[in-house]
Amino acid sequence: MKALVYKQAGQVELQERPVPKLQSAGDAIVKLTKTTICGTDLHIRKGDVATCTPGRVLGHEGVGIIDEVGDSVSRFKKGDPVLISCISSCATCEYCRRGMSSHCTTGGWVLGNEIDGTQAEYVRIPHADCSLYTIPKGVDEAALVTLSDIFPTGLECGVLNGKVQPGSTVAIIGAGPVGLAALVTAQFYSPATVIMLDTDPGRLKVAADMGAHATIDSGKLDAESAIKSVRELTDGKGCDTVIEAVGIPATFELGQRLLAPGGVLANVGVHGTKVNLFLEELWAKNVSITTRLVDGVTTPMLLKMVEAKKLQPDQLITHKFTFSEIEKAYETFGAAQQHGALKVLVEM
Amino acid sequence: MKALVYKQAGQVELQERPVPKLQSAGDAIVKLTKTTICGTDLHIRKGDVATCTPGRVLGHEGVGIIDEVGDSVSRFKKGDPVLISCISSCATCEYCRRGMSSHCTTGGWVLGNEIDGTQAEYVRIPHADCSLYTIPKGVDEAALVTLSDIFPTGLECGVLNGKVQPGSTVAIIGAGPVGLAALVTAQFYSPATVIMLDTDPGRLKVAADMGAHATIDSGKLDAESAIKSVRELTDGKGCDTVIEAVGIPATFELGQRLLAPGGVLANVGVHGTKVNLFLEELWAKNVSITTRLVDGVTTPMLLKMVEAKKLQPDQLITHKFTFSEIEKAYETFGAAQQHGALKVLVEM
Repeated sequence: MKALVYKQAGQVELQERPVPKLQSAGDAIVKLTKTTICGTDLHIRKGDVATCTPGRVLGHEGVGIIDEVGDSVSRFKKGDPVLISCISSCATCEYCRRGMSSHCTTGGWVLGNEIDGTQAEYVRIPHADCSLYTIPKGVDEAALVTLSDIFPTGLECGVLNGKVQPGSTVAIIGAGPVGLAALVTAQFYSPATVIMLDTDPGRLKVAADMGAHATIDSGKLDAESAIKSVRELTDGKGCDTVIEAVGIPATFELGQRLLAPGGVLANVGVHGTKVNLFLEELWAKNVSITTRLVDGVTTPMLLKMVEAKKLQPDQLITHKFTFSEIEKAYETFGAAQQHGALKVLVEM
Repeated sequence: MKALVYKQAGQVELQERPVPKLQSAGDAIVKLTKTTICGTDLHIRKGDVATCTPGRVLGHEGVGIIDEVGDSVSRFKKGDPVLISCISSCATCEYCRRGMSSHCTTGGWVLGNEIDGTQAEYVRIPHADCSLYTIPKGVDEAALVTLSDIFPTGLECGVLNGKVQPGSTVAIIGAGPVGLAALVTAQFYSPATVIMLDTDPGRLKVAADMGAHATIDSGKLDAESAIKSVRELTDGKGCDTVIEAVGIPATFELGQRLLAPGGVLANVGVHGTKVNLFLEELWAKNVSITTRLVDGVTTPMLLKMVEAKKLQPDQLITHKFTFSEIEKAYETFGAAQQHGALKVLVEM
C-alpha cells in the first residue's frame, strides 16, 4: 500500500509499505477513505516530536471502512463506515475510566506517533471498540475528518476546560483550525460575547462569519492596546474564559492579561518552551489555568450534533487533494496563511 | 486608643489614635479582645504592599465584642462576641454572589490595608452583617483568631481549589501556618497520602504531629531528589493535588513537577514576582493551576468544626504577647524559624 512516511527531520515521503496486520484481539484494520493533516504533523516533519521516529507512517485523523477485526472486537464488523479518533482508548485503565483517555496506559495519542497512522491506504487501530465511531446514516463522511481531532480538541481543551457558560464572555487567541473549532463549539453553550484575536485579517473574517461577536487584529496592535480593546468589550472586566490556541509564549502571556477575576485560561496550544506566568498579578485573582490533550470523550456528542445539523464539519475544510498529492497538501497546509488554508481534505 | 501603625517601609509603631466611628449604616465598631499577626503584615512592614499607605492601622485578624452597630446591621448587637473575617463582604455585588467576596466591589481585603485594621483596641468593620461571625457558646474565643484568615485560606485556596478527595494524593510545599492549616483541613476530605515539604526540620516535625503521612526536608535535597522522593511515595505518578504555600518561584516551579496527570496545583503563596510555567511539559498533562485570595466562604463551616471539636484552632498558636508587646511580637513572628513560631496570639 501507499503510505506517507516520516523520513527524517524536514522530510516526509510517499512510500510503498506492507498492509498492516491485526496484532491483538482488540485491533481493527481500517481501509481509509479520507484523511487530513494536523499542525502536529508539521511539528513531526520539522523533527520536534521526539516520540515519533523515522520510518513512522504519519496521521491521526481519518474516516474509512472496517476491513478486518480481531476476535474481541464487538462493536464493529467488516464493511462498517467508521470515524477514527486521534486518541486510542482501552476504556478500562485508571485514566480512561476518569475520562482522560489521552493518558490511557496502553493508548492515548499513539497513531502517527508511536505506531503507524492514517496517512495510508490502511491503518491498524488498537482498542478498536473505543477508538472508532460508527458514522451515522445520512451523514456525509468526508468532512468528519474534522471530528478526529480538531473539533473535540477545541471543545474539550478550550470550551469545556474554559467553562464557557450562557451569558459569559470569551476571548479566543488564534483563529487557526482549532481556534475556530473552539469558536464554533463555544456557541453550543450560548456565551454573551466571543472575541477572536489573530494576526491574519483573512482568518478574522472567517471567524466573524462563524459567529465571533468581535475580532481584534492583534498583529496591528501592541499587547496593551489589545488588552484595552478586550476590556472595552467586557465592561472593563476582562473575560470569563480565555482560550489560547496558538502555543507560543507571547499569546499565552497575553491570555493571562485578558482574564476577569474568577476567569479560566484554557490552554489548547502545543507549547515547545516554558512561558512566563505573572503570579505577582494573578495570585489573588481567583483564576484557573488548564491544560489538556484531547481525550475524545465528546466525539459521540459531536457526531450527534452533526446528525442534528447543528454542526457543519465541512466548514473548516478549504482545500482538497488526492492521496497521491499528499506531499503537495503538506506544502499548502504548511504555508496555510499564504494559501488561506484551514483544514485540507485528502481523498484516498 | 492604642493602635499599631505602619509608619514607613521597615517601621511599625504603637501609637495613640482616636477610637473609630460608624461611617455607614452597615458598619459595626468592635472592641478587640485578641488579635494576631499575618505574614502579609510583614510584607506591609517591608513596604511591599502598595495599597497600604503610611499611617494605616495594621491587622486583618481578630476576635472581640460588638461595641456599636449602624442602623442597618441586623445580625449583631452591642455585647455580642464576634470573630472578624479578614474579608469584608457586602454579600450583594456580582462577586460576593458568586462566592468571591475577596473581589467584593466595596469590600474584599480592605482591613489593615485600605482601611484601618484590627491591631488596635477598636476597629470599624464595614458590611458587618456578612463580615463578622457569632462565636458559638462554649467555644474558647482566643484561638479563633486563626479562623480570621489562616484556616479559611488553607482550606479555600489550598484544599478546595486543589480538589482534595478521599483516597487522593496530596503534596503541600511549605509548613508555615497556612501550609499547616491546609494540612489540617485537607484531612476533612480523607486523602490517602499527604506529603509535606519544607526546609525547616522543626516545622516538618510539627507537620508529622498534625497528620502528614510523610515529610521531605527539601532543604537537604536538590529539586530532582525531592521529585524522586514524592514519586516513590505515589506509585511513580506524582500527586493529584499540590498546594504551594510559600510564594517564591522555586517552590512554585517544584510544585509543577510534582503533579500527576489530571492533577491540580493550588497556589496559596503570595507572589511578588513572575514565575516560570513549564508548558512544554504540562500542555498535554491535563492539569490545572489555580489562584485565589481567601473569600471567607468556609468560615461558618470552620466554626462548626471547632464547635464539634473536630478542629483545634489553637494548634497553630505557639507564642502569646500582650498588646503593649506587639512590636516584640512582630520581631518574634518575623524571625519565626529562629523562634519556632507559627501564629502569635496578641491579647488586648
